[in-house]
Amino acid sequence: MELLDKLNWRYAAKAMNKKEVPQEKVDRIIEAARLAPTSSGLQPFEILVIKNPQIKEEIKAIAWNQSVITDCSHLLVFAAWDTYTEDRINKMFDLTNEIRGFKNEGWENYRQKLLGLYPKQDPEINFNHAAKQAYIAFSASIIAAAYEEVDATPIEGFDPAALDEILNLREKGLRSAVMLPLGYRDTEKDWLVNLKKVRKSSEDLVTIIE
Amino acid sequence: MELLDKLNWRYAAKAMNKKEVPQEKVDRIIEAARLAPTSSGLQPFEILVIKNPQIKEEIKAIAWNQSVITDCSHLLVFAAWDTYTEDRINKMFDLTNEIRGFKNEGWENYRQKLLGLYPKQDPEINFNHAAKQAYIAFSASIIAAAYEEVDATPIEGFDPAALDEILNLREKGLRSAVMLPLGYRDTEKDWLVNLKKVRKSSEDLVTIIE
Repeated sequence: MELLDKLNWRYAAKAMNKKEVPQEKVDRIIEAARLAPTSSGLQPFEILVIKNPQIKEEIKAIAWNQSVITDCSHLLVFAAWDTYTEDRINKMFDLTNEIRGFKNEGWENYRQKLLGLYPKQDPEINFNHAAKQAYIAFSASIIAAAYEEVDATPIEGFDPAALDEILNLREKGLRSAVMLPLGYRDTEKDWLVNLKKVRKSSEDLVTIIE
Repeated sequence: MELLDKLNWRYAAKAMNKKEVPQEKVDRIIEAARLAPTSSGLQPFEILVIKNPQIKEEIKAIAWNQSVITDCSHLLVFAAWDTYTEDRINKMFDLTNEIRGFKNEGWENYRQKLLGLYPKQDPEINFNHAAKQAYIAFSASIIAAAYEEVDATPIEGFDPAALDEILNLREKGLRSAVMLPLGYRDTEKDWLVNLKKVRKSSEDLVTIIE
């Protein structure tokens, strides 16, 4: 099946059947997020993979009681940095030098530019920027899940402050951005499974400037 | 080649060779963005596909003179809705009813919920939310480009107000979010092409809660 066929196959399952997703598939879905590009390569987010049934129940309660949260196999939570700090920026630049095995003047100048810019900015602006990078990775996982023929339901509908508390994210300098339960559609219980996919036409979405 | 191999192959090309990307590949890269999931299915963005050399030059001038902007084949600009309006929300709900061929009470209640919520919110909050949805589609195009073995360079480094003006986005109720030049790497001119990909280890990125 080609990639576009898989993207047509996917949808946001509204009911899942509790079947376990094989670990190697979960690993590849997360690897796609790890490989996703981010602004200046900072990867300003972490991914929490929740299998614990008790914690899933707690999260469901602050997320409109969506059943996929407890009936999924693995619940991914994408949590973005609460702000950019000097330490966080330096870590990624140091990692780059370590992996590539050399220091480069242009790259070091760019480090100084970011150090002079990001940590001084309003943390809310920084978090918003970091959250967008988390969305790039989140989308990569959605597509990788489709590629693996695993269902994935993007979820923004939750109380972020409550989720931060359940997962102790603030203590780690993180804030929840978005969730992605991975599992398998329950074709008997899901009202959405047989409905047609709705998308704007290309004509309404795309403008070509030649 | 498996999807993860293609994601390892991809990188943000810093120099492109002006070679044309076949239209059917561009179409599939855009189709991946069209099929991307968005919050409440609103698809609150548009995609501008710029081939015009003059306009590419104007954009390059407000984007740190990055050569890929003029040396790419097609420049995609993802522009998000400047806010959520009643009209925009109604259009997508009407389209859903049209495509699916019926009205549903739950869905109509959900329409009313969004109509009561989004248009009243601060436009800046709405734009930020819409921009995140545009990032989901943007990421889908990045992955689809890799799948097609087309290079794509994510670009946030530009003056958004100036880009809005060049493309008359504000008049259309849009604001530029992010750009994606599509083309082919210039292996002789690109300083990045032979450097190792840098990513955090899985251990640093992922926490498993069992």
